[in-house]
Amino acid sequence: MNIAILGFGTVGSGVYDIVENGDRRMRVTAIFIRPTHPATMPEMTTNFDAILADPNIDVVVEAIGGLHPAYDYILRALQHGKHVVTANKAVVAQHLPEFITTAAQHHVRFYFEATTGGGIPWIRNLERAARIDQIDTIEGIFNGTSNYILDQMQRAHLDFDPVLLAAKDMGYAEADPSADIDGDDVVNKLKISAALAYDMVPPRDVPKFGIRNVTKADIDFFASRHQVLRLIGKSRRVGNHYSMVVEPRLYPATALAANTFENFNLIRLHGQTIGDLQFYGQGAGKYPTANAIVQDLFDILENAPHLTRHFDQNLQFDADLNTADYLLRADPITFAMFNDKDTEVVRDHLLIKQIPTGEMHRLMRGVLAIDAHAFMAAIGDSELTTRNVKEQVDQGVIE
Amino acid sequence: MNIAILGFGTVGSGVYDIVENGDRRMRVTAIFIRPTHPATMPEMTTNFDAILADPNIDVVVEAIGGLHPAYDYILRALQHGKHVVTANKAVVAQHLPEFITTAAQHHVRFYFEATTGGGIPWIRNLERAARIDQIDTIEGIFNGTSNYILDQMQRAHLDFDPVLLAAKDMGYAEADPSADIDGDDVVNKLKISAALAYDMVPPRDVPKFGIRNVTKADIDFFASRHQVLRLIGKSRRVGNHYSMVVEPRLYPATALAANTFENFNLIRLHGQTIGDLQFYGQGAGKYPTANAIVQDLFDILENAPHLTRHFDQNLQFDADLNTADYLLRADPITFAMFNDKDTEVVRDHLLIKQIPTGEMHRLMRGVLAIDAHAFMAAIGDSELTTRNVKEQVDQGVIE
Repeated sequence: MNIAILGFGTVGSGVYDIVENGDRRMRVTAIFIRPTHPATMPEMTTNFDAILADPNIDVVVEAIGGLHPAYDYILRALQHGKHVVTANKAVVAQHLPEFITTAAQHHVRFYFEATTGGGIPWIRNLERAARIDQIDTIEGIFNGTSNYILDQMQRAHLDFDPVLLAAKDMGYAEADPSADIDGDDVVNKLKISAALAYDMVPPRDVPKFGIRNVTKADIDFFASRHQVLRLIGKSRRVGNHYSMVVEPRLYPATALAANTFENFNLIRLHGQTIGDLQFYGQGAGKYPTANAIVQDLFDILENAPHLTRHFDQNLQFDADLNTADYLLRADPITFAMFNDKDTEVVRDHLLIKQIPTGEMHRLMRGVLAIDAHAFMAAIGDSELTTRNVKEQVDQGVIE
Repeated sequence: MNIAILGFGTVGSGVYDIVENGDRRMRVTAIFIRPTHPATMPEMTTNFDAILADPNIDVVVEAIGGLHPAYDYILRALQHGKHVVTANKAVVAQHLPEFITTAAQHHVRFYFEATTGGGIPWIRNLERAARIDQIDTIEGIFNGTSNYILDQMQRAHLDFDPVLLAAKDMGYAEADPSADIDGDDVVNKLKISAALAYDMVPPRDVPKFGIRNVTKADIDFFASRHQVLRLIGKSRRVGNHYSMVVEPRLYPATALAANTFENFNLIRLHGQTIGDLQFYGQGAGKYPTANAIVQDLFDILENAPHLTRHFDQNLQFDADLNTADYLLRADPITFAMFNDKDTEVVRDHLLIKQIPTGEMHRLMRGVLAIDAHAFMAAIGDSELTTRNVKEQVDQGVIE
């Protein structure tokens, strides 16, 4: 099987290393680079059309990232009868149904394990779980950069800015870290996961609040309550309604999420017969991400079927499907916005009880208009911690 | 695809429920029961030979358990050209290579996801990881019953016997709980995992020490040291040598293993490019186990390839490959056995530093001959907790 890799940065070169040192049935025969990149290897080319036209190339690995020209390259590769494997979460979150349809029309595969959870085989296992169960919950730490920042703030007692600087130094954060700390990266991964889990097209806008405004004082306050802050993505389905949200969330200290340190990811699904299933691993990095891409390459090589989705389920997005308690730290003048809610002042924070998630995010936009440094965190219903006895009876775990 | 289920207990009836309410391409057409079982359904039969002779039956699900007659039934079903799926860890741990060879000879599949980790897709993901990496470590909580006991002893401050009674009441422990509390169940699951990971036949005897002797006082002592006790199976490979051990192990309170409560399982693998990958879920119970069996049925239905293993790698089993610190609680007269070791008395316990695992287990047999109630626990090197910076640099996680 002959492979063309588009882009030879961290991920592209990682794929090259694994393929060249691995199974002899795979070979990298072309590496597409920008004209500004030095052509140091014979496989390197700046001519994408030549790759499309080469009948010996079976698979295109897209490792460029970003929406353009990646979207165009993926689509044209599929249209030219080439399988495509990508790690590009932005383009997949936006165009997954189109890619899947185009691949089916041209009898090729479109795989994207590396988009979500890095080295964690999340996509594959979500697809497998969905063969049997209707997945009703997806929840997790999908972003290693933000987890590294929150963990270091708590365990090394540092403030946001110095930790972000250190994260950039260590290669955990990019020069512009907005996508990681503002939650957009998690939104993309959650969209991909929910699209597969529920077989539908996710909404364009997902309620989202990041960790840019969190302070050392916030973290210390949460710690005094034995709560650990994590940036999470969560989606829940009830009947024909579903919710999606990306937000900071507080977990009790004994939750697996609270004990997920450094830049690791922890992602959970819940289904009727499987119950609670969680995956922990390296959510980014050269070889973990390349590993996920090469797993997709093996599935193409071995003709291993993936779940077929048509994204045609008629489900209703409802941002207010879930309620939660929220802790809000903001100029107290904003607390008046919550006068009709059940609230309690806890030190510098306002505790708002059982408010619908969508409503809280809408009100938070008003809060931020007055106090641009305000911060809020949901209080986890500890689903990542505790088991439900009734559920275990239903599952036959308790007889 | 027509399925015969052998045995209609918890697991067999769970498979029936999922198949009958699931994909219409699968059907249960025969249920093999003992003559003493009431034949309440038209599919039920006491004639195994009729199942073998029925050309319409494609797959046999073995859900009887135990070595005999399960071994004979599995082998004959394969020889009659029927795919076999089983949850029977005892028979698979002992006969895996023979079953695989027989299946290959008769061009059918032999799958056994449900043997290890219950609903956790452990076998499948271990196989997938092994397509790319040489797996060097397997470690985890493979047994829910023993985890439930240890967790209740610690968190509900109870002694061993009342917790075991409660576990039996809740259906977590069998009438004879020896296999769960003495580690034999974990040995079987570890053998299956190591056989797949290293592509070899595991040794007949694996160093093993269970939790039968643990007391509330032991647990309280460990808690005072911020350590949490778990019964684990662990295997490690270094070059052409590998170790396997089943033993109680102490983890720091922030380890994922220490925060795996109730009857849940947590299983980890480590490979060069994937790094640390961990799976958490329901390790037993009617529907989680049945889910794992039905996943195998889907793989047969969809012709999804699994990893091909020949179990012919020439590796050397070395019980002393690893060293660890151990805490020993025993009649102090036995402490003399460790005179040539680096030791320290810590309250009622002897701390033995960096002793090879196999040697510690051999010496423990001598200790037990003098004090039948003695207990020991390894001190985890916290691999389940902390990341290795050097490894992350190698993986390209840190640039």
